[in-house]
Amino acid sequence: MEKTISSLQNPLVKQLVLLSEKSRERKKTGLFVIEGQREIALALKSDYLLKTVLFCSDILSEEDLYVIKEQANSKAEFIELSIEVYQKVAYRGSTEGILAITQAKELGLQNLAITNPKPLILIAEAPEKPGNIGALLRTADAAKLDAVIIANPKTDIYNPNIVRSSVGCVFTNHIATGTTSEIISFLKDKNIAIYCAALQASSPYYSCDFKEAAAIVVGTEATGLSKEWLAHSNQNIIIPMQGEIDSMNVSVAAGILIFEAKRQRGFNE
Amino acid sequence: MEKTISSLQNPLVKQLVLLSEKSRERKKTGLFVIEGQREIALALKSDYLLKTVLFCSDILSEEDLYVIKEQANSKAEFIELSIEVYQKVAYRGSTEGILAITQAKELGLQNLAITNPKPLILIAEAPEKPGNIGALLRTADAAKLDAVIIANPKTDIYNPNIVRSSVGCVFTNHIATGTTSEIISFLKDKNIAIYCAALQASSPYYSCDFKEAAAIVVGTEATGLSKEWLAHSNQNIIIPMQGEIDSMNVSVAAGILIFEAKRQRGFNE
Repeated sequence: MEKTISSLQNPLVKQLVLLSEKSRERKKTGLFVIEGQREIALALKSDYLLKTVLFCSDILSEEDLYVIKEQANSKAEFIELSIEVYQKVAYRGSTEGILAITQAKELGLQNLAITNPKPLILIAEAPEKPGNIGALLRTADAAKLDAVIIANPKTDIYNPNIVRSSVGCVFTNHIATGTTSEIISFLKDKNIAIYCAALQASSPYYSCDFKEAAAIVVGTEATGLSKEWLAHSNQNIIIPMQGEIDSMNVSVAAGILIFEAKRQRGFNE
Repeated sequence: MEKTISSLQNPLVKQLVLLSEKSRERKKTGLFVIEGQREIALALKSDYLLKTVLFCSDILSEEDLYVIKEQANSKAEFIELSIEVYQKVAYRGSTEGILAITQAKELGLQNLAITNPKPLILIAEAPEKPGNIGALLRTADAAKLDAVIIANPKTDIYNPNIVRSSVGCVFTNHIATGTTSEIISFLKDKNIAIYCAALQASSPYYSCDFKEAAAIVVGTEATGLSKEWLAHSNQNIIIPMQGEIDSMNVSVAAGILIFEAKRQRGFNE
C-alpha cells in the first residue's frame, strides 16, 4: 500500500528540500535528489541505488511509473505526492512527475577503474559554475572519456544544478574527485601524461601528440590552473587566440582540446 | 554642471530599466544599456555612440571616469546617480559604478563588410539561451572570425544577458542578423560554402576541407537546423559522439567545429 503525501510539512518532503538546497545535508547523509524520468533511468543504468521515489500520478503515467519500478532496486520505496506538493518541490514542476532520493557514489580516486591502457582523461580544477560543469560532463560523455576528475571541488557533483545541466551525464561518466596533490600522484603512478591548459610556456594544442595516455587539465576562467599543476605538467598547451579579448568559456576550451585528442586518435575508443 | 539623480522615479532611470528589461523598448528607441568600464571601453573602440553615461562616484574613481570621458563621443551626456539608485538599477551593483545608454548598430546583412576573400563565418539559427550566445561570441572573438550571423533571432543581441555573458565580445565581433532565406542568398552570392551541423547525411567534421570560404551553421540543441538550411547545405558535418547520451552544448560544438577550421587554416587570419 502506497502512502500519499499532501503536506509540505511532511518530514520526507522537508528532507527532499534540504537535500536539494544544502551541500552539507548531502554530505551528511550521502544522499541526493534526481528529477525526471530520463535522468532516473540513466542513474539506474549506472547502478545508482534509489532510496525513495516520489511521484505524482497527476503528471506521471502509470506505464512510466511501472518502467521505473521494474528497473529500480527492490528496496526502493515508492511514495505518492499530491500535485500541490510536487509542484512546490520540483524544478520542472509540471512536466516530469518523478523525483528520487538516491544514494551518492563514493567518488574517491581509489574507486576510479581505468581499463584503457591509453586513457584520455579530463581534469577540471575548482570549476565553479554548475552550468559549466554540466557542459563539461556532456562533452566528456560525447567523447567517451575514460574519466573526468574534479580537483579541489568547490561544490559536490550532486548539486541539483549540475545534475540538471549535465542532462544525466553526471551518471554516465566515470567521475572522481580529489585534491590536486592526490590526483597528480594518481596520474604519475599510472604514467598518464599531464597537459595543462595554460598561457605560459605553452605549445599550440594541435602540435601536441595526444595518442598516448593523456590527462587534459583545465583551470578556472578567472585564474587558470594552480602552480602545483603547472609544476607537474608534462607539456603546457594553449589554444591560440587572435581576437580582442582572449577569453573563452572553460567548457568550450575543454571541448576543443578533447576533440583534438579524439581526432588524433581517429575517434577510436 | 552635472546633475545627480537620486530618485528611482526619475524618467531617465525609468528608461534605463525599460531598456534593460524590454526588447520592445530597445527596438522602439534603437538604444540599449551597457554596464561596466571594460565593456563600455570595448564598445567605444568599436565605434558605438554613447547617448547617456550614468555613473556613481561612490564606486567609480575620478580617474576611471576621466578615461571614459576622454574616449566618449562629444555629444554623450554624463549624469551622476546616487549610490542607492545605482545599486538598484545595476546588475553588478557595487563593483562597476558606470552604465551607458548606447545607440544600437544596424545589424542587417547589407551592413556586414567581409573583406577576407576566404572568410570563416559562424551562423547560429534561432539560438535561445543568452549564455550560449555569449559563449558563441567569445569563441568567435578568440578565433577572429570574419562574421557571426544570427538567423531568425529569438531575441535581440543587445539583451543585457547577452551583452554580459559575452564579456564584451558582442562589440568586438562583426555581427549581423537576418532571416534564414536572406542569409542563404547572401552566402550564395558571395560563394561561401555552407557546412550545416546535422545528424543526417553528414561527414565527420574533421574530414571536411574548411580552407576555402566557409560558413559553419549550427541549430538549436533541441531541434537542430531547419529544413531550409539543410536544403542549401554544401556539406552536412557531424561531430562523432560515442557516449550514452549524444548531447553536447551548442557553444561547445560550435567551438570544436570552428577551431578545426582554424587548425586546418594554420591559424592564419
